[in-house]
Amino acid sequence: MINIALFGLGRIGLMHGKNLMRNKNFNLKYVYDINKNLTKNTAKKLKAIPINKPSIAFNDKKLEAIFIASTTATHIKLILEGVKNKKAIFCEKPLDLSIYKVNYCKKKISKFNPKIQLGFNRRYDPGHNSLKKELIKGKIGKLEKIIITSRDPAPPSIKYLKQSGGIFRDMMIHDFDLTRFYLGKDEPSNLIASASNISDKKFNKIKDFELATCLIKSKNGVQCVITNSRHCSFGYDQRVELFGSKGMIVSENKREKETSLYSNNFTSSKSSFMHFFIERYKEAYKLQLIDLAKFIKKNIKPLCEFEEGRKALIMANAANKSLKSKKFEKLIF
Amino acid sequence: MINIALFGLGRIGLMHGKNLMRNKNFNLKYVYDINKNLTKNTAKKLKAIPINKPSIAFNDKKLEAIFIASTTATHIKLILEGVKNKKAIFCEKPLDLSIYKVNYCKKKISKFNPKIQLGFNRRYDPGHNSLKKELIKGKIGKLEKIIITSRDPAPPSIKYLKQSGGIFRDMMIHDFDLTRFYLGKDEPSNLIASASNISDKKFNKIKDFELATCLIKSKNGVQCVITNSRHCSFGYDQRVELFGSKGMIVSENKREKETSLYSNNFTSSKSSFMHFFIERYKEAYKLQLIDLAKFIKKNIKPLCEFEEGRKALIMANAANKSLKSKKFEKLIF
Amino acid sequence: MINIALFGLGRIGLMHGKNLMRNKNFNLKYVYDINKNLTKNTAKKLKAIPINKPSIAFNDKKLEAIFIASTTATHIKLILEGVKNKKAIFCEKPLDLSIYKVNYCKKKISKFNPKIQLGFNRRYDPGHNSLKKELIKGKIGKLEKIIITSRDPAPPSIKYLKQSGGIFRDMMIHDFDLTRFYLGKDEPSNLIASASNISDKKFNKIKDFELATCLIKSKNGVQCVITNSRHCSFGYDQRVELFGSKGMIVSENKREKETSLYSNNFTSSKSSFMHFFIERYKEAYKLQLIDLAKFIKKNIKPLCEFEEGRKALIMANAANKSLKSKKFEKLIF
Amino acid sequence: MINIALFGLGRIGLMHGKNLMRNKNFNLKYVYDINKNLTKNTAKKLKAIPINKPSIAFNDKKLEAIFIASTTATHIKLILEGVKNKKAIFCEKPLDLSIYKVNYCKKKISKFNPKIQLGFNRRYDPGHNSLKKELIKGKIGKLEKIIITSRDPAPPSIKYLKQSGGIFRDMMIHDFDLTRFYLGKDEPSNLIASASNISDKKFNKIKDFELATCLIKSKNGVQCVITNSRHCSFGYDQRVELFGSKGMIVSENKREKETSLYSNNFTSSKSSFMHFFIERYKEAYKLQLIDLAKFIKKNIKPLCEFEEGRKALIMANAANKSLKSKKFEKLIF
Repeated sequence: MINIALFGLGRIGLMHGKNLMRNKNFNLKYVYDINKNLTKNTAKKLKAIPINKPSIAFNDKKLEAIFIASTTATHIKLILEGVKNKKAIFCEKPLDLSIYKVNYCKKKISKFNPKIQLGFNRRYDPGHNSLKKELIKGKIGKLEKIIITSRDPAPPSIKYLKQSGGIFRDMMIHDFDLTRFYLGKDEPSNLIASASNISDKKFNKIKDFELATCLIKSKNGVQCVITNSRHCSFGYDQRVELFGSKGMIVSENKREKETSLYSNNFTSSKSSFMHFFIERYKEAYKLQLIDLAKFIKKNIKPLCEFEEGRKALIMANAANKSLKSKKFEKLIF
Repeated sequence: MINIALFGLGRIGLMHGKNLMRNKNFNLKYVYDINKNLTKNTAKKLKAIPINKPSIAFNDKKLEAIFIASTTATHIKLILEGVKNKKAIFCEKPLDLSIYKVNYCKKKISKFNPKIQLGFNRRYDPGHNSLKKELIKGKIGKLEKIIITSRDPAPPSIKYLKQSGGIFRDMMIHDFDLTRFYLGKDEPSNLIASASNISDKKFNKIKDFELATCLIKSKNGVQCVITNSRHCSFGYDQRVELFGSKGMIVSENKREKETSLYSNNFTSSKSSFMHFFIERYKEAYKLQLIDLAKFIKKNIKPLCEFEEGRKALIMANAANKSLKSKKFEKLIF
Repeated sequence: MINIALFGLGRIGLMHGKNLMRNKNFNLKYVYDINKNLTKNTAKKLKAIPINKPSIAFNDKKLEAIFIASTTATHIKLILEGVKNKKAIFCEKPLDLSIYKVNYCKKKISKFNPKIQLGFNRRYDPGHNSLKKELIKGKIGKLEKIIITSRDPAPPSIKYLKQSGGIFRDMMIHDFDLTRFYLGKDEPSNLIASASNISDKKFNKIKDFELATCLIKSKNGVQCVITNSRHCSFGYDQRVELFGSKGMIVSENKREKETSLYSNNFTSSKSSFMHFFIERYKEAYKLQLIDLAKFIKKNIKPLCEFEEGRKALIMANAANKSLKSKKFEKLIF
Repeated sequence: MINIALFGLGRIGLMHGKNLMRNKNFNLKYVYDINKNLTKNTAKKLKAIPINKPSIAFNDKKLEAIFIASTTATHIKLILEGVKNKKAIFCEKPLDLSIYKVNYCKKKISKFNPKIQLGFNRRYDPGHNSLKKELIKGKIGKLEKIIITSRDPAPPSIKYLKQSGGIFRDMMIHDFDLTRFYLGKDEPSNLIASASNISDKKFNKIKDFELATCLIKSKNGVQCVITNSRHCSFGYDQRVELFGSKGMIVSENKREKETSLYSNNFTSSKSSFMHFFIERYKEAYKLQLIDLAKFIKKNIKPLCEFEEGRKALIMANAANKSLKSKKFEKLIF
């Protein structure tokens, strides 16, 4: 069993904590949150030791790994500390909002040859992931188009949005990474974005966007389209379509139950999609832990590491830049 | 071009007339209906000669074929006359409501070796028909179950119903024939039916049923289920499911347009099914004419002949009998 | 927390044990199996006390409930013992293969007013269950037809089959109960079955059937069709279709992932269904435990009790009887 | 009946000719093609008078309308001639490959207040068209995204491609128009395209592209994505998705038959899409004739006129320009 400490006990932290507790490979030893009461209560739930400063975990020689689910601003600092203390690290996305800090971190940690897994959950989704497998098997021939649709059921709070870094660094970053996942060795080379607010004008006030679209071209000429929306009246819309010279594969939305209603004016009306990321990517969250255990114990590379976080951030920055330049921005990783 | 006369110019007669007019193999020479005005008007539309008695057609040596779309009660008489006059015959379903008359007719015409094609349109539906082809190709291994669903959008008039012969001889007769189509050499051997009225009590008054279900067993043990309803709030429901040892093939409903609506409470809500038989089996009606032409010109057997009409009627009668006996009735063809 | 003992630690027993362990309402105190090693090992996994005879559990005054997942032959005896000792009981289906033993048990326990929940998992499936809710809300008007399809991916071992009681008492019993679930106060009144073997002749040797179909009529005239198969090349096929005067609702199959492949000869080819009952009815197994806790703590009736087990067995027996009589058998509950 | 002359008797011309012949509003009086034999043979098929120069039609005072289905290069000349001779005009897309010629034509004909209907068939497709209706009804709230997918089953001949004007003016021009159709009064304002060749290198030689994607922004901020491919292994892929503040509507692909195959490794595998435009847009081609008749007889505006052809060409030109500038091009209509 791998002794691990969990930093950050908010909604997603608690979910990771439960998954760690139920996974046989891990012993969730410590939990920490800046909120002491939350730390105490969650420790009880997760049968872990509450600690009031991360250093206790870092200094525990028997602790092998840390799991970072705290706010974005704390990620780099915890990574640096973790690497220095020879801990394997799982870090939620994004690494940071500043590419300078991320590059600085990269330089600092490089000599340690660290084990850092990034939390891009979608690579682990059974549907999205199977597309990659089919692609490798040659089921659709040469990859020519990637169409990713990602729409949140409803926007987060203004408070969250203000600190989020904007739609590209907070939300579309998942899809930038997914694009790289499917492209494989063929990296994205150019990118242009479009963003606007139509229904919900509050986004204008904070200079952010509810709607965004991105067009990416890879070195080989693959054309990628990402479509994002901060709201979606019919639920969490999560789809990927890969088009190739010999076929197409699509990962479609999932529903809690597969019922259909037929009536006077319509036929085969289905129920709602799974509500949001915790339900929709439930399996993915479990599967990435299995990869984390293999990474730590057997040094088998997981599907995404530090570099994936860094490169996705570079793409998000290019998207922002293109909004002003109104032209294709070159991606330099 | 085959010179043909059309008898019966009601809704379905007119449709057949238009199809005959547009089919290059046929010259629709005469049209006849008991209603003289209708005959005259329709003749104009179809660019045919109106006749006021069928004998004109029968006596025309250059006329090769007759197309019977008149009321059921007239079918046998016209067939007998047609055969005697060496005309090829297309006859709409059912042959007659009386198996005695049908058997009598069979005996009378047998020495003439007549060409009689029956109007069981579903055998020609591109969807239902392709199931037969896949079955023959072995796509689902050995056939084990046949599930047929057939629901009309709304019941016909009481006047029609009273003369219809009841749900088994008027409506389910299509599905009895379809069962035989899929079974091929393995004929149905036993049959039991259930029938009831739940929502629309008018059927009780005329001793008919709005809802019926039939369970048929073939000689080889294939289990067939037919589900009928005289009403269907969501349209004309027409499905066939064939289950076999190695797979399943389904012929599903068709829609005029393939649109989906997503909203607050539902996802992927589709539009209505094609309204009724004229729209739903449009292709089938054209395809059976192609077979008719081949039958007449090249003596290639069509998908259904006189015997199909006779056997389906025997099944309908057995269904009615089983309602009283409440037991499986043996099918003796 | 409800102290509970689990009897029977086979595949399904272990699954129930894990669910009990993770459910906050229960404290899985004891585990017992006739196989002592299995008891010991499973006890460790489930953090429970291994016992070498059920009486230890029955005599524990602090134990509130027993969970019976042992072989069918042991059910009635454990129920009688449990009721006598004032334990609440969860019993897997079927109650027993003998209606005499079940009726005897019913009489014996009646004075105790016992709490016995039956393990008809499908009533708890989010899809199948939501159909019942829609039906009650009047979404499809008056219920007119119930079509249930249930096909296992592959037959169980001959050893299992020999003791199973046959396809009606072992497999279709689920669907008999489901029929009653949807019919509600309108009980089934007549039933006729058909059964055969086409592909797999081993069933003939043990006088059992791989394929079965049942036609049931309710007091109100609802026509119900159940279609069963012991094999299904494309997976665990589990569907329910309710047709009513104003619409139709269908509970369709579920897949682990919702991917589609498009290629030369086909479009929108989907992945396999969830493999078998443990995966397909995963949610149902959890939800029935929630009902069990409410039953025990708040005396809220669960979706199925002892009588549901008894009545479903009566239907299975009638099905067997009808195979010989070849007629509709009356259902007398 | 409207006397009409058909110019151009190639594949699409013949199809229009048959539709005109079957439409009660039209009398197909003349047919003309540069190929005299073709003119003669087609005239026979369509029961029209073959003419060996268009002027015969233009000079016939009783001829009300001309239908232009000849090669693109002839369109403007025929329009000018037609307008001068006071004929109503139906012209296939595109108007011309040169915006200068189109603008010149616009100026020349403006004083005549001519009736010119453009052949953007997709506006008339029952599926694509119903999306517009739902949008107007407010079914999806405010329009926010338009996603159009259009993929041809296989590229046309090199000969055709060389004269086609390239993927944007020949193929995507349909989708540019469709975008304008849905946007309505909110016109597209900026556009950027991406194009490449991955599988089929012959396109490089003729400086054209097999794959293209376009990102368009409207004045109101609606984000539109068009995805084109000159090949598609699984058939003619034609989809439109409209996303709005309150829902989404999708027009999906159509199939000749709705059958599904289930087997060992897959479930619900559907048959191929309708082959190509003549089959897929069969209804649309008929419906645009109905509009043409209303335009001519009752002066009711059709869904697309000369300006639609001109504006779509401006968009295609902007797409080509953006390939070089690599930036958003402003659309000035």
